[in-house]
Amino acid sequence: MSDFKIRGVVPPVVVPDTEDRRLDVASFERSIDRMIDAGVDGLFFLGSSGEVVFSTDERRDEVVREAVRIVDHRVPVLVGIIDTETERVIEHGRRAQELGADALVATAPFYALGGMADVEEHFRILHEELDLPVFAYDIPVCVHTKLPWKLLAKLGAEGVLAGVKDSSGDDISFRYLCQENERLGHPLSLLTGHEIVVDGAYLSGADGSVPGLANVEPHGYVRMWKAAEAGDWATVKAEQDKLNDLSHIFDVTTGVQGFGGGVGAFKTALMLMGVYESNQMPRPVKALEGTNVEAIRSVLVSCGLLEA
Amino acid sequence: MSDFKIRGVVPPVVVPDTEDRRLDVASFERSIDRMIDAGVDGLFFLGSSGEVVFSTDERRDEVVREAVRIVDHRVPVLVGIIDTETERVIEHGRRAQELGADALVATAPFYALGGMADVEEHFRILHEELDLPVFAYDIPVCVHTKLPWKLLAKLGAEGVLAGVKDSSGDDISFRYLCQENERLGHPLSLLTGHEIVVDGAYLSGADGSVPGLANVEPHGYVRMWKAAEAGDWATVKAEQDKLNDLSHIFDVTTGVQGFGGGVGAFKTALMLMGVYESNQMPRPVKALEGTNVEAIRSVLVSCGLLEA
Amino acid sequence: MSDFKIRGVVPPVVVPDTEDRRLDVASFERSIDRMIDAGVDGLFFLGSSGEVVFSTDERRDEVVREAVRIVDHRVPVLVGIIDTETERVIEHGRRAQELGADALVATAPFYALGGMADVEEHFRILHEELDLPVFAYDIPVCVHTKLPWKLLAKLGAEGVLAGVKDSSGDDISFRYLCQENERLGHPLSLLTGHEIVVDGAYLSGADGSVPGLANVEPHGYVRMWKAAEAGDWATVKAEQDKLNDLSHIFDVTTGVQGFGGGVGAFKTALMLMGVYESNQMPRPVKALEGTNVEAIRSVLVSCGLLEA
Amino acid sequence: MSDFKIRGVVPPVVVPDTEDRRLDVASFERSIDRMIDAGVDGLFFLGSSGEVVFSTDERRDEVVREAVRIVDHRVPVLVGIIDTETERVIEHGRRAQELGADALVATAPFYALGGMADVEEHFRILHEELDLPVFAYDIPVCVHTKLPWKLLAKLGAEGVLAGVKDSSGDDISFRYLCQENERLGHPLSLLTGHEIVVDGAYLSGADGSVPGLANVEPHGYVRMWKAAEAGDWATVKAEQDKLNDLSHIFDVTTGVQGFGGGVGAFKTALMLMGVYESNQMPRPVKALEGTNVEAIRSVLVSCGLLEA
Repeated sequence: MSDFKIRGVVPPVVVPDTEDRRLDVASFERSIDRMIDAGVDGLFFLGSSGEVVFSTDERRDEVVREAVRIVDHRVPVLVGIIDTETERVIEHGRRAQELGADALVATAPFYALGGMADVEEHFRILHEELDLPVFAYDIPVCVHTKLPWKLLAKLGAEGVLAGVKDSSGDDISFRYLCQENERLGHPLSLLTGHEIVVDGAYLSGADGSVPGLANVEPHGYVRMWKAAEAGDWATVKAEQDKLNDLSHIFDVTTGVQGFGGGVGAFKTALMLMGVYESNQMPRPVKALEGTNVEAIRSVLVSCGLLEA
Repeated sequence: MSDFKIRGVVPPVVVPDTEDRRLDVASFERSIDRMIDAGVDGLFFLGSSGEVVFSTDERRDEVVREAVRIVDHRVPVLVGIIDTETERVIEHGRRAQELGADALVATAPFYALGGMADVEEHFRILHEELDLPVFAYDIPVCVHTKLPWKLLAKLGAEGVLAGVKDSSGDDISFRYLCQENERLGHPLSLLTGHEIVVDGAYLSGADGSVPGLANVEPHGYVRMWKAAEAGDWATVKAEQDKLNDLSHIFDVTTGVQGFGGGVGAFKTALMLMGVYESNQMPRPVKALEGTNVEAIRSVLVSCGLLEA
Repeated sequence: MSDFKIRGVVPPVVVPDTEDRRLDVASFERSIDRMIDAGVDGLFFLGSSGEVVFSTDERRDEVVREAVRIVDHRVPVLVGIIDTETERVIEHGRRAQELGADALVATAPFYALGGMADVEEHFRILHEELDLPVFAYDIPVCVHTKLPWKLLAKLGAEGVLAGVKDSSGDDISFRYLCQENERLGHPLSLLTGHEIVVDGAYLSGADGSVPGLANVEPHGYVRMWKAAEAGDWATVKAEQDKLNDLSHIFDVTTGVQGFGGGVGAFKTALMLMGVYESNQMPRPVKALEGTNVEAIRSVLVSCGLLEA
Repeated sequence: MSDFKIRGVVPPVVVPDTEDRRLDVASFERSIDRMIDAGVDGLFFLGSSGEVVFSTDERRDEVVREAVRIVDHRVPVLVGIIDTETERVIEHGRRAQELGADALVATAPFYALGGMADVEEHFRILHEELDLPVFAYDIPVCVHTKLPWKLLAKLGAEGVLAGVKDSSGDDISFRYLCQENERLGHPLSLLTGHEIVVDGAYLSGADGSVPGLANVEPHGYVRMWKAAEAGDWATVKAEQDKLNDLSHIFDVTTGVQGFGGGVGAFKTALMLMGVYESNQMPRPVKALEGTNVEAIRSVLVSCGLLEA
């Protein structure tokens, strides 16, 4: 069973770009410090919203290097080592551990699928070849494999996995996983990636959350976690309600979809709030502009995050 | 409009591994020579069945370097530059052109999706940033985006794309694409990846095929292409029928699926026929063994490719 | 806005068959009485687990007629009027209202899809043509359309829909719907169909639940609802945990899937508990037998619902 | 093995509505006569484009009764008996055979799925309970089950099925089915429903086609079939090319999708050509209008089916 445990709010960190698409280190530092000051319990770099699949290996290294420097051990640094198949994932894992990560986060193999025996073997190999604790990132919308809760629990009990970042959208599976994890002595740190229903995941028994929206509003997620720890579910729900009002930055835009609409909204909000210099996006995605920016501004104003 | 044209049989080359998973150069050379001697019109390296997503960058380079050396300009060398998003694909493209590829093959972005505007922008950027002709690889089963035939035809007419490798399984879309391509002056080289219905694709107007099964039996595909060129459709169909009998190497196995069953069957057949030394597979996939190997042997025997 | 409101536990009633597949009225009555005695707040007949799509029109009428007779106004009777397209659904609706239903439950059109404008028009026509309140049944796994929360909220505010039975598995959408419904003055009765995470749905603001498992164990769901009403979330979670242990009757079987595994497990449990005479299933589905029955017996014993 | 054999062109008959949505018998007769006069080899009523799932049982009976009367034994009458599960399908089958159908066409069960054992049992029960030959209608886009070619071939060899109407879009599976059917002595009449690639299906060995577009242009499909019978594949392809130009009536419209766009285009074309009085659609679908009608008119003019 892994010794690495994490509880609480672990935002997946969005990455600011300059207009000409270099890493905007000053904005990155501002955003990281802002989240740590708000009280988050860890930071997850190079997740899906952290542009991992848009980044060259060189850029990935730069992000991890700067992240480790800026965070400076104030909270644990989790790093996504996301790539298509095992050998490529191992390479990312080795670089991340050399650069100072505290834990690694890997998905199931993707692009070429081969069934659950391959998936299990994949995680076993990662555990053997890498020195840091490995979290399974369950994100079928991107990799088109749902990690079965029974497999996750088994790999947790055997010490192959240290935790799970659940972005599956399958709250039933997550609830079964929480119960089974408890039965097994709680080997896995179970984090939900569903920022809109973190309250339900906490009630299910999650150990924490990985909410992208915490890049924009970390304080609400920190308050929600503290209320959950205190068993104050009315407050948990009320905080979630407020955060969900803010989450409409995702659906007030038009003509954009997927990554460009979601991460684009985060970057635009952070730009409007003065945390980022630009809302530039990685190629081939275009930055939000015009009425889409104004629509996001309105949501921020109505949620009290920006003055009218 | 691109100057690069290709017609005929262009097998996606399967990659032999030694038992300890290094590139088996001798087997690779034997297999490539065997296909060229049979009369194929080009070779496609680092496609889906060429283990592109299982290969580290170093391994990809080794495959291309050896391929270019072995082929030695006897036929054009197409190279897959498959990765998640634009910047990463560009890097693979630059390496492939330095190593001597003749044309490049790229999929739509995957893992993070953003709609058709992003897809179009992706191919436009590849065309701008790379010097070699670019083929679009339409493989929704792996990337979860179907490339619309109207977009492909438009990008062909504008010279952004030189051709299409269609592994979409959508024969309706492919037929529309063939007709539209003809109307536009045939800017695109249109290759079907559907080894089981190459006959139908030729009747639709395909310029050629990319049949994985040609690794095992190149002669049949070469005869089929010549018959199609001669308008002898009865022979085209008869050759396809025989190849399809051989294709049951895919479905006589049990307990395997996806990549492991398909490419595993190719490697096992080539091992049994003495072309490969081993049927080793890349991690996390296991090589076929036991009764699965024997079942493939039976198919080869019944098709006359192996003595009983 | 509809006058019909419902809150609390509304089980979707499973239908007992005799060995020769006639409606087993005595078992039906026993099961209905057992749930009403346990304190449920309504009963939903001819839902997906109520065999609606397996039943001829004559059988549907028989189920509704007996249901209305047995329930005898002790709780509201909701009736599923599920069929492919509008005219057929209207016919079922007219029969159900003649036979004494209190409210009707309809899905989006299925088999032939036409986009969201058709879906909206479908519900508007049902509201115009039928006299009883209409609930939208959101069950994309069966009808392959997800009902958007914004559309549901709009149709609620206009009085077209009286409520929603959510079996979508999309807890994010459900949470947005709860918040929007609240903002609009709570026009819709919002019921979750996800028996495994009813606790999270209650925290989200659901007005009640439609748990199939309540056919087997109604008392737990009633206790959970009362705890939720009292704001006692620790008890809500604890009751859900216990019900989830029982829910493993779904996954201890082998060689069955889908309807046969799910509803088959309900019927088998009820047979073992003496509520049903038989666990017969509608054609073409086979009843569970042998080791599958014994596996379900073990779960019932371990949950204290059956003596060893 | 079934005695019923059918070869050639068997259009799925579209159903004309009056403005107030009654069956327009005069238009129906005009359209049927027009297709028979063009030389079609059979007619398929109450298929997906024949509005089967939009029609009440009374309307279904009316369509079959009028169809049998109008056709008057000039060609075989196939009737769709499409409904969710076995008992309901049997009822439709009994009515169709009483009303004079020559063969019946049934899909896999839908809405509630249970795996391939249920699907096989379903077709076996239909064969036992009904007196007419049964065709399997393979249409996964509507029923979400793909019928495996091995199962179809087995049921053909055992005489359970008389044929297959393949609308699966899976040309690989269809080709395997053709080869296996041949090996088994050709028990099944194999008809393709893919109007855009009928040429490829004929080359694969199809016994005929069920092209919706033949409602609009039956002559082309009849000429294509005769050319295929004569082994004149250049003509087969040329006829298909011309029909595909006409098929753009499907994609020149805007703001419509699915059934409304497809069958709506058929009805609009037939109205413009004077065969139908109206292009009315069944509820909840709206008839095409305005610029969509004009766009279809332009296609008809450019294909020579209408004067400018």
